[in-house]
Amino acid sequence: MAEKVKLTSIAELGEFGLIDHINEKVKIKHKETIKGIGDDAAVLQFDKQQTVITTDLLVEGIHFDLMYTPLRHLGYKAIAVNVSDVVAMNATPKQVTVSLAMSGKFSVQAVDQIYEGIHAACEEYGVDLIGGDTTSSVTGLMISVTAIGTADPKKIVYRSGARENDIICVSGDLGSAYVGLQLMEREKEVFKANPNVQPQFQGKEYLLSRILKPTARLDVIKKLAENGVQPTAMMDISDGLSSELIHICRQSDTGCRIYDDKIPFRQDTVTAADEMNIEPLMAALNGGEDYELVFTISPDDYEKIKDQEGISFIGHMTNKSKGMYLTPQHGEEIQLKAQGWTAYKSE
Amino acid sequence: MAEKVKLTSIAELGEFGLIDHINEKVKIKHKETIKGIGDDAAVLQFDKQQTVITTDLLVEGIHFDLMYTPLRHLGYKAIAVNVSDVVAMNATPKQVTVSLAMSGKFSVQAVDQIYEGIHAACEEYGVDLIGGDTTSSVTGLMISVTAIGTADPKKIVYRSGARENDIICVSGDLGSAYVGLQLMEREKEVFKANPNVQPQFQGKEYLLSRILKPTARLDVIKKLAENGVQPTAMMDISDGLSSELIHICRQSDTGCRIYDDKIPFRQDTVTAADEMNIEPLMAALNGGEDYELVFTISPDDYEKIKDQEGISFIGHMTNKSKGMYLTPQHGEEIQLKAQGWTAYKSE
Repeated sequence: MAEKVKLTSIAELGEFGLIDHINEKVKIKHKETIKGIGDDAAVLQFDKQQTVITTDLLVEGIHFDLMYTPLRHLGYKAIAVNVSDVVAMNATPKQVTVSLAMSGKFSVQAVDQIYEGIHAACEEYGVDLIGGDTTSSVTGLMISVTAIGTADPKKIVYRSGARENDIICVSGDLGSAYVGLQLMEREKEVFKANPNVQPQFQGKEYLLSRILKPTARLDVIKKLAENGVQPTAMMDISDGLSSELIHICRQSDTGCRIYDDKIPFRQDTVTAADEMNIEPLMAALNGGEDYELVFTISPDDYEKIKDQEGISFIGHMTNKSKGMYLTPQHGEEIQLKAQGWTAYKSE
Repeated sequence: MAEKVKLTSIAELGEFGLIDHINEKVKIKHKETIKGIGDDAAVLQFDKQQTVITTDLLVEGIHFDLMYTPLRHLGYKAIAVNVSDVVAMNATPKQVTVSLAMSGKFSVQAVDQIYEGIHAACEEYGVDLIGGDTTSSVTGLMISVTAIGTADPKKIVYRSGARENDIICVSGDLGSAYVGLQLMEREKEVFKANPNVQPQFQGKEYLLSRILKPTARLDVIKKLAENGVQPTAMMDISDGLSSELIHICRQSDTGCRIYDDKIPFRQDTVTAADEMNIEPLMAALNGGEDYELVFTISPDDYEKIKDQEGISFIGHMTNKSKGMYLTPQHGEEIQLKAQGWTAYKSE
């Protein structure tokens, strides 16, 4: 970095200083948030609504690479992926807690950049930051977020509610996050070989934004509610379409069938995938990190959203005995496999 | 390790296998837990009660050393320290989520040992394990826990409620966790120099248990409620008595005065501290990790608990202008300082 700014070490600020420094920028939005940061625990008050809680851990070197991930984007993403899980329950995100572990190398300015992203995401999704824990790590940066949401008990959507003949829908487009990631990995190798070469990202901004700053589709569940559609099952696509459909089928005790020509791809995803010899279909099925929603609806609800922009109808649920398959336009049927989970690859 | 058991790698089990493996042993205890592990988020239902949420991150090399921390104890401790924060709000712990990050070196059997401790703690404190995230790390083990509790809004105790003349109380004994930690550090150095030397822990089991398997004092808040005592402020002692009292004074806008001869020490703590040239008073003030409760009560409530075993009355709150001091039996007054927070020591 070429910045000449004097950086403050976290040790200089001390515990009380760091907590105050972080709290200064927190504004509470929800009346349910009785007490946020600053005591042993936050205090919330919900009535009649059910509470939805989810947690996710982002680990340096596994989920992100600081060589190409701006800290601000990282903070944003940590919130967005948790909000995405609340949204996937068809609930309204309300609060988040954030725990950070980082090595002594990090400055207060680095912490500020992470929190800038956290605040931007809290603003965008309308959630209150209510607590957390900040500590040191021997190596590397780790962010653990817990998100809390509420919903009318009748509106919550589980993975287990899909029935035979329900229509499988996905929001947005798929595969772009994986292609974006490969693009960054490629440029990183080029940069390592020759630091004078500038990265070639022109026209690929969307693909990069998909992996660096994913969006939780709060807008999609709002739109479904406006149209009177209650999904029968729903998940967010973090591990790849294939893995998520398997979860829904297993918990709903069904099979499923999807069609490759129905899967939504953007042209820039296909073009960049071609350049790198990536099969876009595989990026959608197994790449993960798109954070779009995959959900099932009763056939009776199809009319209500068939013209809705940004929703694709990619197949239907079947009897369990039919298994879980993708039917391509050309060639043999492909059995869906959970290859998306790369966090424990044997090496 | 001398075990000859064939270990299963986490990669062999795969994502679905690992989730099922962990879920098998989870039993739901609370009617408020509508849905636990197995969807995008857990679902809880609270009525009238307020919800208390806290989160803590335990990092290998910072908060624990696997050379002397059995994995089972680590799992137990991760739950206990979070339950302790809920208890410190005078709330009843109800649910926990657990996120684990660990390197590929860990076997499924190692994960099982961590979860054995987690389940033992969940059983002891009557909490439901409702979710989490399990992922890989490049180096080291990290455990992030979020705990949820409930309380009648009128019963919740904040740090900010202490008033001038309130009596400062602590549960149990102090300094033992720090002395236990130093004991283990010393034996580790001996072992590194000569692996054939057996550790000298006879008669020091209590001190070791204090650091390896701390207890959340759920029993203390139950006893206070039975005696009709509502603390005016309360915290659990994780960073040392000094740091916690500063938090209470700052938030309550008061000063405080405590007396060294009132601070509860066990004889084995004092003996072991002497052997290692540790000042027991410094272990209590700045050592941390005792996970006892420090709380303030109105002088009117003193009669109700003055004979209660396991509660010591160590001083009183003062006007803010009087500062925060310890009065020793001999020598000069000591100003309380927040030295307990060692997570960001400059090196």
